[in-house]
Amino acid sequence: MERDERLLVKGFKFAARAAGLKKSGKLDLGLIVSAVPAVSAGVFTTNKVVAAPVLVTAPRVRAGRCQAILVNSGNANACTGQAGLDDARACGALAARALGLAEELVAVSSTGVIGQPLAMECFTRGIPQLVEDLNETAAPQVATAIMTTDSFPKLAAAKGQAGEVDYTLLAVAKGAGMIHPNMATMLAFVLTDAQVAPAFLDQALRRSVDGSFNSITVDRDTSTNDMVVALANGVAETPEIVAGTPAAEEFQHLLDKILLDLAKMIVRDGEGATKLVRIHLQGARDAAQARQAACSVATSSLVKTAFFGEDANWGRIIAAVGYSGAEVDPERVEIRFDAVPVVRDGLGTGKELELRATEVLKQAEFTVTVDLHLGDGCADYYTSDLTYDYVKINAAYRT
Amino acid sequence: MERDERLLVKGFKFAARAAGLKKSGKLDLGLIVSAVPAVSAGVFTTNKVVAAPVLVTAPRVRAGRCQAILVNSGNANACTGQAGLDDARACGALAARALGLAEELVAVSSTGVIGQPLAMECFTRGIPQLVEDLNETAAPQVATAIMTTDSFPKLAAAKGQAGEVDYTLLAVAKGAGMIHPNMATMLAFVLTDAQVAPAFLDQALRRSVDGSFNSITVDRDTSTNDMVVALANGVAETPEIVAGTPAAEEFQHLLDKILLDLAKMIVRDGEGATKLVRIHLQGARDAAQARQAACSVATSSLVKTAFFGEDANWGRIIAAVGYSGAEVDPERVEIRFDAVPVVRDGLGTGKELELRATEVLKQAEFTVTVDLHLGDGCADYYTSDLTYDYVKINAAYRT
Repeated sequence: MERDERLLVKGFKFAARAAGLKKSGKLDLGLIVSAVPAVSAGVFTTNKVVAAPVLVTAPRVRAGRCQAILVNSGNANACTGQAGLDDARACGALAARALGLAEELVAVSSTGVIGQPLAMECFTRGIPQLVEDLNETAAPQVATAIMTTDSFPKLAAAKGQAGEVDYTLLAVAKGAGMIHPNMATMLAFVLTDAQVAPAFLDQALRRSVDGSFNSITVDRDTSTNDMVVALANGVAETPEIVAGTPAAEEFQHLLDKILLDLAKMIVRDGEGATKLVRIHLQGARDAAQARQAACSVATSSLVKTAFFGEDANWGRIIAAVGYSGAEVDPERVEIRFDAVPVVRDGLGTGKELELRATEVLKQAEFTVTVDLHLGDGCADYYTSDLTYDYVKINAAYRT
Repeated sequence: MERDERLLVKGFKFAARAAGLKKSGKLDLGLIVSAVPAVSAGVFTTNKVVAAPVLVTAPRVRAGRCQAILVNSGNANACTGQAGLDDARACGALAARALGLAEELVAVSSTGVIGQPLAMECFTRGIPQLVEDLNETAAPQVATAIMTTDSFPKLAAAKGQAGEVDYTLLAVAKGAGMIHPNMATMLAFVLTDAQVAPAFLDQALRRSVDGSFNSITVDRDTSTNDMVVALANGVAETPEIVAGTPAAEEFQHLLDKILLDLAKMIVRDGEGATKLVRIHLQGARDAAQARQAACSVATSSLVKTAFFGEDANWGRIIAAVGYSGAEVDPERVEIRFDAVPVVRDGLGTGKELELRATEVLKQAEFTVTVDLHLGDGCADYYTSDLTYDYVKINAAYRT
């Protein structure tokens, strides 16, 4: 692996192995380690069926300090009862021992099949080797080791400044949908060498996740294993970034950008997806209603199959807005495909514009704007098309 | 058409024509007429974008008396503004004039493409012919005339007794999903020659619809045109059926049965569906939570593709229960495919039982039972699998 300066974050090292958890023999175990305990923040699945690693990791991350993340694919360690919980703790303990850290500083994370016991020998053998392999440049390999149905590894990085000191933000993510409770949806790990105040890191992460991973959809399933963890180790020796300062604004902006980039990669890599569509909802009564209506359009199977069919079928879009629960005055609704208006005052604008809209739909990426003309609320949602391959991947997977 | 005694309802006549609304030249206009004004009740779409015929018909049906139903396929008359509203009223007026009835006694109903003006000449020409054709046996033709993506006409009938007088219940429905805002989802017309108290008819219809048409899903879209209308003309001269009597209980039972039969036909005819699956949710904290959890499982794209793949993938089911919003204790969850337990106390029961469950999934119809072991709440939901053909039909339709 050649040295990619953009991906270097001071004081972080990475390693990945094929530890035998995936039958395919591909990379399936990753380790991220900070030179010093880092300030930590996390967002975790809201599913009431929570996988063991989430149960172990959430309190550790929320306690505010974390120094290492051990992550495996190939097995979600979900619906595995007390034994699964013991296994998740044991994995963390193995990593802690090999690294010479307190157990509480190690986050564990898993993604893969539900309901199977972890093959602990993979961890017993794999972890010491990972620790030996640790280096500054292996973030892409970690991004590869966490893939399940993903077709490409997902990384994003950005450089910022605080008090004229440079810092780096790097994030890796996995997910090919919002999807796959069975393969365990969506993981992301955000690393920075900036020094960040704990309260601000938590607030910034939540805000960025709302505008990125919580604003995408491929299908509507929410996993037992979802987790986004951010670590700020301060090794770049920036002044501490605290809320309400220009440095905080820049940090938020960069974090928003890299998480949205990763979120779009996840949609683009949506199972069987051929299109990335931004649903831009404006003119709603408020932001919450905008989000509700945007989500309704973005998750409609009929809308998503029409995208696949490259059919400017605005009837399905207006119907999805209508049943979203948001306030709608049908006679004010306006819909555009990129710049082409197809609905004005709730009425179709005619065959000619619809034909032009069809050209918009032939693109791999485009925006559907829905304006309710009721207020200032707006929201963006990113979605994919629903294709034969989505059905194929999900019907065939596991068997 | 030979005379099918089961489909005769005293005092009701039917007619259907190919009036030119469907390009295919198939039946697309239907008329149902009662010899006398009937007691009426109705349930209408909750979509905020409401088609013109629903706006015209809902207040008429709710006023309590109705004598005729004019219904067309091929055009939904939705998102058509004031012109569409004028057209819907004009259609009703044409039928009223031809039948010699007050306009307020005529219900109009449409299903088909959204956003296109009605071809009024089809109604001007077609309605007088329909009135000429009226006869007692043409209910099946009306069921055919309301089809859009349906692959078969849907009728159900039952015989009951009130005060030792026989009566008949007959219902026709259309729908191939819960689906197709573009083709306008789900219509049903329920006819009986029993004498039914207005308040009880309304109450009985709502209850039956909740347990039937509101408990099925193919996708999650709700149409602008959904409508269920019930007419009771009393021509069989039964005593009036009022709430709280044994006759009311029988009537409710028969109505539940025929509407559930029709609802199952709709799921079975789901776009591209190859399986009819009953999600039986029990042991929830209460009935509302049972419904919430059942709906979550029934509408999960991942669960539905697993059904198509004949994969006893209980991880997807337990995850869908987990994010449903219903109270769940993961360690109490039990899941069965027909009689085969695959999850007990939140844990998988092993490979052997999973293989037996796979045999269950090979059937065209089966039941998934989820027991939350928290209380007495239970609910049934009917769903289909999600297949290549669903995508094909919905991506290709219209273009």
